Amino acid sequence: MFGLIPKDEKFFDMFRLMGTIIIDGAQQLKDMLDDYSDPLTSQRAIKDTEHKGDSQTHEIIRRLNKTFITPFDREDIYALAGALDDILDLIDASAQRLVMYNVDQPTDDARKLAEIILNSCHAVGRALQHLGGKDADICACCVEINVLENEADQVCRSAISHLFDEEKDPIQLIKWKEIYETLEKATDKCEDAANILESVVVKNA
Amino acid sequence: MFGLIPKDEKFFDMFRLMGTIIIDGAQQLKDMLDDYSDPLTSQRAIKDTEHKGDSQTHEIIRRLNKTFITPFDREDIYALAGALDDILDLIDASAQRLVMYNVDQPTDDARKLAEIILNSCHAVGRALQHLGGKDADICACCVEINVLENEADQVCRSAISHLFDEEKDPIQLIKWKEIYETLEKATDKCEDAANILESVVVKNA
Amino acid sequence: MFGLIPKDEKFFDMFRLMGTIIIDGAQQLKDMLDDYSDPLTSQRAIKDTEHKGDSQTHEIIRRLNKTFITPFDREDIYALAGALDDILDLIDASAQRLVMYNVDQPTDDARKLAEIILNSCHAVGRALQHLGGKDADICACCVEINVLENEADQVCRSAISHLFDEEKDPIQLIKWKEIYETLEKATDKCEDAANILESVVVKNA
Repeated sequence: MFGLIPKDEKFFDMFRLMGTIIIDGAQQLKDMLDDYSDPLTSQRAIKDTEHKGDSQTHEIIRRLNKTFITPFDREDIYALAGALDDILDLIDASAQRLVMYNVDQPTDDARKLAEIILNSCHAVGRALQHLGGKDADICACCVEINVLENEADQVCRSAISHLFDEEKDPIQLIKWKEIYETLEKATDKCEDAANILESVVVKNA
Repeated sequence: MFGLIPKDEKFFDMFRLMGTIIIDGAQQLKDMLDDYSDPLTSQRAIKDTEHKGDSQTHEIIRRLNKTFITPFDREDIYALAGALDDILDLIDASAQRLVMYNVDQPTDDARKLAEIILNSCHAVGRALQHLGGKDADICACCVEINVLENEADQVCRSAISHLFDEEKDPIQLIKWKEIYETLEKATDKCEDAANILESVVVKNA
Repeated sequence: MFGLIPKDEKFFDMFRLMGTIIIDGAQQLKDMLDDYSDPLTSQRAIKDTEHKGDSQTHEIIRRLNKTFITPFDREDIYALAGALDDILDLIDASAQRLVMYNVDQPTDDARKLAEIILNSCHAVGRALQHLGGKDADICACCVEINVLENEADQVCRSAISHLFDEEKDPIQLIKWKEIYETLEKATDKCEDAANILESVVVKNA
């Protein structure tokens, strides 16, 4: 049945571009945490990337609303665009909280989470490159994203656990708990994107 | 294509009524913060309005489930009804927290946020009045809602930033952080409604 | 119209099984709070049940993606599977927080919430048993779930209110506020499931 529907390569290209924007944002967040010399400037650069992601998401939705036949289910395109946009929103929200809470130096756990986010965004980007290609390649990326989300979940929980054991200043505890949770949510959003991609693959199989 | 589909004016009327209920709730919240002499009574009045909104939302969903041909996409009607209901839920949740946390006097930032919420709800109400009318009029309201959401976001972030700088009592900090975030979320929900309205306009263009 | 569509009993069976898994998880959470002698072991047992729920959810989605004609709207099956999975996630998240925050003894309010969750999950399970049966039986369960959600909401709000009145240690306050909110969210997710079930009933009436 799907063979009769012309693959709209344009959608695939637009998602691929979105993938590279997400990787840029994740790389900037990792760089910010690795070299925390000028957090405000780093945060503004991430904000710019988030704006680029916003525009690209709007482009995809606009095209979707104007297109009658789509390469995969309309609601999946809509959901995927939303999930990808959410990844960048959470990366931006993490950077904002570091600045807003006047964080002096990031912790090792925060750096670990930024690295997992970057790896997960690379896997999302690779999955998007394979759109219209081999299903097995997409699925391999999705499995990787799931593993990384579990890893981030464990790092986050152990970081918050330590916080409650050791941090005696409740205001510091509030700040860091929220920073860890925001970072972890970025990997949740990668997983949301992976779930949508998996369901697209299964439907078209 | 859409010319062949009879516009079901009843849906438009139902959404317009929902718009006036939302404006009522937002006005009551602003009044509560401007004259904080009897917060419990104010909160109960807002709760009543929230119940009215609930009933109206149920009416819309019930009609949707019974209607075969709808004036715009079934899932957009569903999503719009949900987003409008969420606006009132957040207005109600804000009022509840002020009472539950025994807030003595609202802050200037809280009052500012209530004013932005009211302006945003007026814009939502106007957009709903234009349903079935000129697309440009709806879009103008949506742009306004987006601007107001950005404004609320900035007020909220600066309020929380000040809180962390100045509030030494962590329990007060927890209370106010949550009150600001709840108020800000009400404008997020207005933006969600605006996004759905914009997508309805684009699809039917 | 719906008479022409073969009822796919397999979907009903899969949802019924999911219902029993949810009841198991809710019972384990109640048992954990009633006999808090070995919280870590209790939490691991709940985690196992949550994994079972995950697998069952994947089974349902997989079958959905492979099935052309479904016993009720495709998007409702998808939404229902997601809502049911969320119930178990919140039960698991509640148990995790008790362990992660080194809670010594659960409070009466936490025990009350666990009991409401169990009652609500029993009602969800019963509604799922009635899938494909009498609409009135499903609706009766949904009404019950709504009542229980309101009850949980009141217990949660009064518990948090007391917390702010009496708990002088902000770190304890942060822990318990989040535990109560997580427990209460489990009943919200039951209500989400009930809303979807009600809309399925109305559509097919």
